[in-house]
Amino acid sequence: MPSFQRICTAACLGGSCISLGFIIGRVSKKETNELPPRQSHAENVETVSACNPLSKAGPNLYSLFTLSAATPYRTSAESSVIPVQQPANAVQNMVKYGFPSTDNLRSYEDFMLSYDRRNRVPNWVLEHLTPEKVTVNEGIERSKMQFVEDESVHAFHRATNKDYKNSGYDRGHMAAAANHRQSHNAMAQTFTLSNIAPQVGQGFNRDAWNNLEKYVRALARKNKNVYVCTGPLFLPQYENGKLFVKYEVIGQNHVAVPTHFFKVVVVENTSGQLELQSYVMPNQALPLDTKVHHFLAPLDMIERAAGLNFFQNIPKGTFHKVNSPPPIKY
Amino acid sequence: MPSFQRICTAACLGGSCISLGFIIGRVSKKETNELPPRQSHAENVETVSACNPLSKAGPNLYSLFTLSAATPYRTSAESSVIPVQQPANAVQNMVKYGFPSTDNLRSYEDFMLSYDRRNRVPNWVLEHLTPEKVTVNEGIERSKMQFVEDESVHAFHRATNKDYKNSGYDRGHMAAAANHRQSHNAMAQTFTLSNIAPQVGQGFNRDAWNNLEKYVRALARKNKNVYVCTGPLFLPQYENGKLFVKYEVIGQNHVAVPTHFFKVVVVENTSGQLELQSYVMPNQALPLDTKVHHFLAPLDMIERAAGLNFFQNIPKGTFHKVNSPPPIKY
Repeated sequence: MPSFQRICTAACLGGSCISLGFIIGRVSKKETNELPPRQSHAENVETVSACNPLSKAGPNLYSLFTLSAATPYRTSAESSVIPVQQPANAVQNMVKYGFPSTDNLRSYEDFMLSYDRRNRVPNWVLEHLTPEKVTVNEGIERSKMQFVEDESVHAFHRATNKDYKNSGYDRGHMAAAANHRQSHNAMAQTFTLSNIAPQVGQGFNRDAWNNLEKYVRALARKNKNVYVCTGPLFLPQYENGKLFVKYEVIGQNHVAVPTHFFKVVVVENTSGQLELQSYVMPNQALPLDTKVHHFLAPLDMIERAAGLNFFQNIPKGTFHKVNSPPPIKY
Repeated sequence: MPSFQRICTAACLGGSCISLGFIIGRVSKKETNELPPRQSHAENVETVSACNPLSKAGPNLYSLFTLSAATPYRTSAESSVIPVQQPANAVQNMVKYGFPSTDNLRSYEDFMLSYDRRNRVPNWVLEHLTPEKVTVNEGIERSKMQFVEDESVHAFHRATNKDYKNSGYDRGHMAAAANHRQSHNAMAQTFTLSNIAPQVGQGFNRDAWNNLEKYVRALARKNKNVYVCTGPLFLPQYENGKLFVKYEVIGQNHVAVPTHFFKVVVVENTSGQLELQSYVMPNQALPLDTKVHHFLAPLDMIERAAGLNFFQNIPKGTFHKVNSPPPIKY
């Protein structure tokens, strides 16, 4: 079970060996068999589509579910239909292969997310990347962008810059800023704190995790479409024979520090073939020379641990490659 | 700040003093001022209602959001509109004062819930109680009922009886079985594992928590309507000057053992006056003589910790009583 060994290696790097007990009994021997049943978990989406038979999968459907980024929190008396401001096809493209969940959705110009109000971090963030989107645009300067609170979230459940200050953690992007170079607005929106989770800086956010993000952009440059779902994990550890989930919370609003992060990537090459790559990285300083393929992990492990299903509209057996190691460069 | 002292007392009972740091700065001095802004957080509900203007708040609206209990997990190809099998007004009555959240909703004959797929326990369970519903019905025998898996949840995220077996924890009801005596089916559905969370048995589920449930039924017997929202909390503790959330997970599916449970109760008396009572209890053996009023806790503390908003359709200042101690008997 090479991929299971890899995830164990990944989880144990840095000295903190995380239990993956509930995977062991279920991981299939062949990587191509590791995928779970390809079933849709987007019940709400399906049932609402019935409400508008003329728009079975059109943009109107998704606008019913999502708040655009600029929508401040408002009372029920004030709200009605909330205009979605992103390009008409942006969300459609992102959710082409399914919704991971339908809780507290927010749609931005070039990514969307589900927000975890209990932990003040995303549940998941979904992006659709193309060669054009990741091409460097000299006019857009990341250094001028600022982290901002998400005013569409009730103040009780909102992460703030103050929560991160002096915490020792970076404000880590889930949708990477450099994935969204089409417009100033698209990149600026990745600095919304709903797209952010506390990450170890040196050795992780600025190194190993950054390498994974760079690798995904390299994939996007060389392929037709890349779909990326990124988010936190809170994995348990053994202590005196029992399993415990343990994670730090920072700031007055108790922003959760994930123990790990996942990244699930579907690559559509220029021939239309689909490849799956799924990664788990522990949120800790990692050896600088670690290749990204050390963090490949079975998709079903991530799905169980995150409580999510990814890209469930892709039928089982469709992928021509699953968790094949990337070229040696990465 | 009497209510804050109470919650500290509650949290410290049993020797495990839980940090409530993020509450301290925000608890108002007067109980009547402790309520947060009364705002709706049910964005999805509002936006979907616009999809069907003829049914602004009718049963069709809610049927779009909820799966009935008997609906097995199915693929997107199989699902369309899912019939809701409970009495037409049951869900409407439960959500009269608002939805706590709109993630993974399940509606049963006499209660509804939001399921936490990551933790395999409910996010919250909502009930509407009346004198009739809690009246003992001799024909319905609780002892004959069995705990069952929720087949509407994907197998990756479903709690099973095997997970609880030999764990040392009770299968604790969120919607109490004895609150639903109208029919065999209504009570039997409370034994679905989506309505269950691991609870300490002796001293908690069978004692202190049971006393709170009995007290709520006593309220239901004496008043016109009682609305109850119940669920788990995962509260942080200080360790070496930092705050950590730590909780056990049990079984192959890693069912989370909550550190605490909340119960938020809105009582409408026969004059139509509304009273709010909100409780937090640590999931541990508690002294047998502890009165329920020791566990009264500010609503905003629960809302922040749970990532939820409760009964948000009730305007601020409407309650004629907030967290007034119950009679000495309890």
